[in-house]
Amino acid sequence: MNKDESKLGVAIVGCGTVGGAAAAILTNDAQGLRARCGMEMDLLHIVDVDFSHAEELGLDSRLFRTDLAKVLADTSVDVVVELVGGTTKAREIIKKAIAADKHVVTANKALLAHHGVELWALARRHNVCIGFEASCGGGIPIIRALCGGLIANRIDALFGIVNGTCNYILTAMMLHGQTYAQALGQAQSEGLAEADPTLDVAGVDSAHKLAIMGALAFARQIDFEAIPTYGIDDLDLCDIRYGQELGYVVKLLAIAQRQADGLSLRVRPAFISKEHPLAWVSGPFNAISVYGHAIGHTMYYGRGAGGLPTASAAVADITAVAVGTAQREFAALGIWPDRCQPADQLPIEAVRSRYYIRVIADDQPGVLAQIAAILGRYDISICSVLQHESLHADMARGVPVVITTYHAREGNVQKALREVDALEVIKAKTVCLGIVDEHPEEL
Amino acid sequence: MNKDESKLGVAIVGCGTVGGAAAAILTNDAQGLRARCGMEMDLLHIVDVDFSHAEELGLDSRLFRTDLAKVLADTSVDVVVELVGGTTKAREIIKKAIAADKHVVTANKALLAHHGVELWALARRHNVCIGFEASCGGGIPIIRALCGGLIANRIDALFGIVNGTCNYILTAMMLHGQTYAQALGQAQSEGLAEADPTLDVAGVDSAHKLAIMGALAFARQIDFEAIPTYGIDDLDLCDIRYGQELGYVVKLLAIAQRQADGLSLRVRPAFISKEHPLAWVSGPFNAISVYGHAIGHTMYYGRGAGGLPTASAAVADITAVAVGTAQREFAALGIWPDRCQPADQLPIEAVRSRYYIRVIADDQPGVLAQIAAILGRYDISICSVLQHESLHADMARGVPVVITTYHAREGNVQKALREVDALEVIKAKTVCLGIVDEHPEEL
Repeated sequence: MNKDESKLGVAIVGCGTVGGAAAAILTNDAQGLRARCGMEMDLLHIVDVDFSHAEELGLDSRLFRTDLAKVLADTSVDVVVELVGGTTKAREIIKKAIAADKHVVTANKALLAHHGVELWALARRHNVCIGFEASCGGGIPIIRALCGGLIANRIDALFGIVNGTCNYILTAMMLHGQTYAQALGQAQSEGLAEADPTLDVAGVDSAHKLAIMGALAFARQIDFEAIPTYGIDDLDLCDIRYGQELGYVVKLLAIAQRQADGLSLRVRPAFISKEHPLAWVSGPFNAISVYGHAIGHTMYYGRGAGGLPTASAAVADITAVAVGTAQREFAALGIWPDRCQPADQLPIEAVRSRYYIRVIADDQPGVLAQIAAILGRYDISICSVLQHESLHADMARGVPVVITTYHAREGNVQKALREVDALEVIKAKTVCLGIVDEHPEEL
Repeated sequence: MNKDESKLGVAIVGCGTVGGAAAAILTNDAQGLRARCGMEMDLLHIVDVDFSHAEELGLDSRLFRTDLAKVLADTSVDVVVELVGGTTKAREIIKKAIAADKHVVTANKALLAHHGVELWALARRHNVCIGFEASCGGGIPIIRALCGGLIANRIDALFGIVNGTCNYILTAMMLHGQTYAQALGQAQSEGLAEADPTLDVAGVDSAHKLAIMGALAFARQIDFEAIPTYGIDDLDLCDIRYGQELGYVVKLLAIAQRQADGLSLRVRPAFISKEHPLAWVSGPFNAISVYGHAIGHTMYYGRGAGGLPTASAAVADITAVAVGTAQREFAALGIWPDRCQPADQLPIEAVRSRYYIRVIADDQPGVLAQIAAILGRYDISICSVLQHESLHADMARGVPVVITTYHAREGNVQKALREVDALEVIKAKTVCLGIVDEHPEEL
């Protein structure tokens, strides 16, 4: 902290979309911020190699720096805000900032998912804190909810729509009947998807956020590599339509769930009921449903990406350092190695869920009986069957049969579907998607 | 704080639904709480005059006390949790607790709406804090969101469904076609409405919560008495049905909105679009939509009442005192008289909104022209008109004509409708409800 205790010295490293927006808030709304929290945020340095975006935003060029070491040597800097992204340079920046006894604020989910434990421990040794509200759900204050507002609860389940790019694509497929490729193209042309969208559409970004939220929700160390992760890039429009017919919408869900035999963390496209509050979360919006033993179902909704929304969370963290709450909340986090064990993360085979199964089969007598027999052998009960009349279909290509199941063990489903796909009457690889039921409230 | 810094001494005053649930969480989940925040909550006293509920819950009778003074004299008590309710006894309890230098946690919205400024100032003089997360939205961490997570934002609007009783009744009217009286009766039989439901159905409870949330959102002192408050008790089922036909649902909304000429805080039943996230908030659930200049639209959803959900928030506040964040957040609140001015609260006449107007008129030529002429004179533009064919209706009783307007000044609408109601062709008092449009995001 500065000698002047009512002032907090801030250095922003990385002046891209989020960094620029954070600098703009600190600059343009300084008076409002002071009125709301009684402290002054003093933006001292903006560190980057390229200031074209900073200049576009009209930020004060006297704050532009290229030499991080000099900035870290400035004793009036209390907080370093890392908004560079990626896991190599950003990691070095944060380690150097902590070594210089600066508090850190970051939006970097990839970095925290991979190296959170190392960085948290390092920060604790230096008696500084890391604020990471901006790492999950953009501006949505979900980290504060998990660490503070919901602390009285044993969290039993968390379902998150935490990738706006995927949600935008899925919404376009559902509402406008676009194929995945068409919807992705539109998202790219609107700046809502990267030229290389892999990190988003393959579910990896969601898994990063799930690793962070899961650690806080369960007070356990999460192994990011052990999170089964599936993307939306091979979703077929026809399955979205069948799902709609059955009363479901498809969402890319980050799921953390307490099962009797362990914790399941997974990312996958899944069906949820049209009645579930997450169902109407559309376009670039994010939302996270959390189920606690005392509070029951609670949900948090807002913009999960973009400059200003994400900067809203980063500035909240900066303010929390100024007020002094960030340090205490960080010290109280249930994720320290000495207080918290590694989570017993279940492999995907051990997940118990309901399933949507779509086979393409010959339209001949006995097909459904063959399939049902295999499912039965693996202890999978059929909940519903949907097969439309196909009098004029091309029989050689087979007809789709959609089956939904009651709760079953995913390992069993996988084995059963391998047997199903080996049947002569099956014409194409069977599609299988999870159905996520409303988590029952305990109250 | 105790001598043992890892332990927080807690006294609960009032062991009813919420107090009992809070005591149960502190007792039954002590180990989980310690794991999640690293501190021990030590429940030392449960103060009440009647312990029948406490006994039903199986709480430790060795903690039961009837003498508050003795409890306040116990130096190992750090926090007094007031869950008595009401504005007389509770006020005295809190004042005594503060005078004894105890931190206070309360769920008492009525008390804070009426006497918050007095109690906050008193607490500050004694260097203790008041935690009041449980006062608004039950378990939903909306206070933390407004004071922390959204602090980077200038809040422009807040729309809250913050009374579960009303929302339950309105949901029953909409979904099951029940009249207000039928739905109220059912809510009472299910324990979701009091025998005397006035405080809930007249909107007063929502106004209490709005006063608290509005103060935090705008960092202004709110005059509770100046909040125009309307209830749901005279809502006609037919208006709910016309609204549905027009694409709206009716909700009792607590509204805080920044207008060019001041701040409007008001509670009233109003129509919102079926597409708005608040529209599907049904039954006893609560939700609060908040619009910030940086984050855009963000929403918080959960159970707004009940023992365990409300206790979830109260225990979160107790934990925050233990961790040390509550004290710092309280000190940083933007609502201190020396930092914050009284809000320039607009009277209902100055509100600008869209309106739903239902007249009952003679079915004869020129009626609509007469009404439209009056509206036009008061600068009210008609947005849509809905009049069903009524070939077989009882003409003597008149036919309903539903008109929606573009934005208009409420004072003008009131004046216009007085003139409309004076027309000879008008058969009954005209019904007028606000239509709340999605607040535009600035991003």
